[in-house]
Amino acid sequence: MTGNWDASNDGYRPLDEGGLRAYLAGLAPVAGLLGGDSATWTVEEVGDGNLNLVFIVRGPSGGVAVKQALPYMRLVGESWPLPLSRAHYEHLALSAHNRLAPGLVPRVHHYDEAMALIVMELLRPHIIMRRGMIEAIRYPAFAGHIAAFMARTLFGTSDLAVPAAEKKVQIATFCGNHALCKITEDLIFTEPYTIADNNRWTSPQLDDAARTIREDGPLKVAVSELKVKFLSETQALVHGDLHTGSIMVTETETKVIDPEFAFYGPMGFDVGAVIGNLLLNYFSQDGHASRDDPREEYKDWVLAQVEACWNGFTREFLALWDGARAGDAYPAALFAGDPEAHRRAQDRYMRALFADTVGFAAAKMIRRILGLAHNIDLEWIEDPDRRAACERRALRLARHMMVERHAIASIGDITGAAKESRRDGPAPLR
Amino acid sequence: MTGNWDASNDGYRPLDEGGLRAYLAGLAPVAGLLGGDSATWTVEEVGDGNLNLVFIVRGPSGGVAVKQALPYMRLVGESWPLPLSRAHYEHLALSAHNRLAPGLVPRVHHYDEAMALIVMELLRPHIIMRRGMIEAIRYPAFAGHIAAFMARTLFGTSDLAVPAAEKKVQIATFCGNHALCKITEDLIFTEPYTIADNNRWTSPQLDDAARTIREDGPLKVAVSELKVKFLSETQALVHGDLHTGSIMVTETETKVIDPEFAFYGPMGFDVGAVIGNLLLNYFSQDGHASRDDPREEYKDWVLAQVEACWNGFTREFLALWDGARAGDAYPAALFAGDPEAHRRAQDRYMRALFADTVGFAAAKMIRRILGLAHNIDLEWIEDPDRRAACERRALRLARHMMVERHAIASIGDITGAAKESRRDGPAPLR
Repeated sequence: MTGNWDASNDGYRPLDEGGLRAYLAGLAPVAGLLGGDSATWTVEEVGDGNLNLVFIVRGPSGGVAVKQALPYMRLVGESWPLPLSRAHYEHLALSAHNRLAPGLVPRVHHYDEAMALIVMELLRPHIIMRRGMIEAIRYPAFAGHIAAFMARTLFGTSDLAVPAAEKKVQIATFCGNHALCKITEDLIFTEPYTIADNNRWTSPQLDDAARTIREDGPLKVAVSELKVKFLSETQALVHGDLHTGSIMVTETETKVIDPEFAFYGPMGFDVGAVIGNLLLNYFSQDGHASRDDPREEYKDWVLAQVEACWNGFTREFLALWDGARAGDAYPAALFAGDPEAHRRAQDRYMRALFADTVGFAAAKMIRRILGLAHNIDLEWIEDPDRRAACERRALRLARHMMVERHAIASIGDITGAAKESRRDGPAPLR
Repeated sequence: MTGNWDASNDGYRPLDEGGLRAYLAGLAPVAGLLGGDSATWTVEEVGDGNLNLVFIVRGPSGGVAVKQALPYMRLVGESWPLPLSRAHYEHLALSAHNRLAPGLVPRVHHYDEAMALIVMELLRPHIIMRRGMIEAIRYPAFAGHIAAFMARTLFGTSDLAVPAAEKKVQIATFCGNHALCKITEDLIFTEPYTIADNNRWTSPQLDDAARTIREDGPLKVAVSELKVKFLSETQALVHGDLHTGSIMVTETETKVIDPEFAFYGPMGFDVGAVIGNLLLNYFSQDGHASRDDPREEYKDWVLAQVEACWNGFTREFLALWDGARAGDAYPAALFAGDPEAHRRAQDRYMRALFADTVGFAAAKMIRRILGLAHNIDLEWIEDPDRRAACERRALRLARHMMVERHAIASIGDITGAAKESRRDGPAPLR
């Protein structure tokens, strides 16, 4: 599985800026979109992610973004090979997202399977949402948009919407993306709970917290239950990496990018990713606030988004369920004339999905503090004592969320607990 | 999906007894096994199932069983086409079962994909277990054998035993068997709970019971939750049709046959099939008993097998879990040195699997009384009043099991409730 890319990637070559210019000049529709002579185009490599090359190309008439997979994990180096096929799954997922949630994902201009390369809409002036939130910028359209994206893509690829035969063809296709799934399996559900070379944390401040988590029996059971769900529940086509670094925003627009981890998995993994990352940002705010700018209102805004994301998602998901649909689950004929049973079915379904969401959100929070890949929300807090204070609160809430995920009654209980967990002492203002 | 078999089944022709004789004569290893001149072989079509041709062929040196798929559902006729590819999946599953549970399934002598035909070990003097149980015959080895079969095949294809990358290849393969899954989805999880042409029941005696079930909101919610599990939980390679008609027995041997419904689904579907069919037989015994032969001890034996199957399955499954294993779920490293967490993880896993088992068992019971395909355990009770009395008790227990599946604490609670539900009045003895 790993390591065979160097032998078999016929037709693949990673592009530099000059190579990309020549490549795009040969694609008539893209060259037309950029306009003018290719020599006048600006080509800039801007990849700040962990896995790929990302270029921005601008010409006199317009711009495109180009993403090319590398045959190894960029964050780690050539010692960690990764299959180029992830570009294929990203392209498939982007196509599904464009069909189900048009306007909420970038349009695709060109896909080259051999080159593992996607040319897509240049999103400008959008910025990565995580960066905006670190600056305490509000995105009033975000919660509604992301709720709609999740409801439409998750419902629209689930057994509620799609006949089983058709869905199984899709499940089989995305089974091929197992190498990307394996990264999640190891880095999110296993390593932070054990001693692993990849782990790092704010040390020595959090050494005790990391040890406590490694020795927390109920927590290890809970994260293993979530891992089994991730391994074997093919509920819907999930984005698979839906954090605020995979969302580009303006005040009025929201675009979900980078679905290379896409596969058929539990819906709560996506919803939990959004909620877990909002909560991480919430806890990071005390590290960015100052006496002049305590950010209390922004913190409240972030928690309001946590609630708005879940509530909006629920509302839109159930509206889709109530509409015309072709799936084999919960056959409409079975519930026709029995609105009470219909409501009961929906309540129980959303209740189970909420427990999954809470658990996966917690898993996302813990891995970003104790595992390999951290979030700049917290990493950019320079003072390690201050950062550790924020991280400790996030860990405490995440532990509660994961172990009590079946008992937590509502999203309000989580935002309430988040507020409560900042009352452990004076806010560490600078 | 349906209906394309007649255009594309190149190389396929259904065999009659003469055609099969010539076909087998051309297979040197099989001809050698049968021995002598092919003209001396006896060839007999014995298929009593719903889907296929089944032949027994004997020669001077030995015998074989031959199963050939028909391109339609035999029970219904050519109006209900079914893909021949199910023979491919049956062969794959038989191979997996032979590897994981050798001695508990027939050996395969020859497989012909184009002809959708499997030549396998002739099981003699084994009989279909259901027929023996109708005659009140005990099978002392059965519970241990079926518990071992289920534990080894289900554990051995689960995320506990198999690395995710390898398991996903298998999941993708078996996604192709969706037409057989669709039969289960419709006939087990939907039609018995609604008005459907395929349904039949002992009428008019059970008309009220059938109506009550069609109007039972909590039951319809519960069966729909089980259907979603069946549609989207790829826990292990399940047999998919593991009733007592798919088990051949002697006093000392047990062989599981006919895995053409195999796919990656919830383990509880197999375990529940065994338990549900034992319970149906238990309730049918009052219809076969007489004043001279009240069968009370046999009834107790049947219930004891229900308990032995579950308890034996649990024991063997957990023993496999405690052994060396290669799966990604519940990583051993995470639980090393924390036996309490390990036990807690196992308890919770088996608790969830028990709830699934109880629910699926109930679904199997209800469909055999109100749906398309009935069991001869009950069908062979000639007096419709007597049969309906047995069926009504089975329905009552099944309704309880399905709705309360998360609350029922142990297998003993089910066998206790089964006994209790026969105390509604005098046993209908003849």
